[in-house]
Amino acid sequence: MTASPVSPDAEPDADDRLVADVFARNCDSRRVLENIAGKWGILALAALHEGAYRFNALRRRVDGVSEKMLSQTLQALERDGLVRRDVQATIPPHVEYSLTPFGARVAAQLVDLLELVESEVGTVLAARAEYDRSAADRKR
Amino acid sequence: MTASPVSPDAEPDADDRLVADVFARNCDSRRVLENIAGKWGILALAALHEGAYRFNALRRRVDGVSEKMLSQTLQALERDGLVRRDVQATIPPHVEYSLTPFGARVAAQLVDLLELVESEVGTVLAARAEYDRSAADRKR
Repeated sequence: MTASPVSPDAEPDADDRLVADVFARNCDSRRVLENIAGKWGILALAALHEGAYRFNALRRRVDGVSEKMLSQTLQALERDGLVRRDVQATIPPHVEYSLTPFGARVAAQLVDLLELVESEVGTVLAARAEYDRSAADRKR
Repeated sequence: MTASPVSPDAEPDADDRLVADVFARNCDSRRVLENIAGKWGILALAALHEGAYRFNALRRRVDGVSEKMLSQTLQALERDGLVRRDVQATIPPHVEYSLTPFGARVAAQLVDLLELVESEVGTVLAARAEYDRSAADRKR
């Protein structure tokens, strides 16, 4: 959503705003997409769709992510209102991550996407073999 | 999908393969996700969901993408069997990109995701303002 040019005195209302368009590089929705997109954002959201996680457990679930990268990913998702960070007043304090209602809606879509990708890995491997064979043929 | 250890003589069949798990860093499905998951992959697939595009038109649609990045993105998606590249024997030759049936299924999921993100940009902007306000308070 990008505010359209309005006079400074005008009360902004729905009609004064353009519709969000993620294809437009300056639209705020593009920034949101950038935080969700990327394998770590997608995998973190999909993992949290299974339930709340503490940091280290989430890091084990999202196999291969570095501590720093997961921390940055969660912070961006928290700032965008997709992830909630709860600090429990125990000793030592427990920090738990979970999805907001909006985060849960996004994560549900991502889980569908991941299941589709997982179910079609065979299709992809066959396509790659064919592509590489054709590329080799073209080089001859 | 990762082949489980089998003896070299064994005929591989479905039972000899582990189920794909995108959370596992070495699973082939993780590689597929990496090609789909970046913002350019997502936007290119979503654009092609509207119909076939020639390269330059697709580049205009996916606002902000460089020629090199779009080219790399399309090549990876073609290799993975999501995008088809058709060269028409005209002078000069026309190269057109479209979705394969598998690509269309992935793209349909991504379009749903983008529509959700676009519809909730207001939620995100409010969450960011609240997050930044709280962060400023904590610093005091």
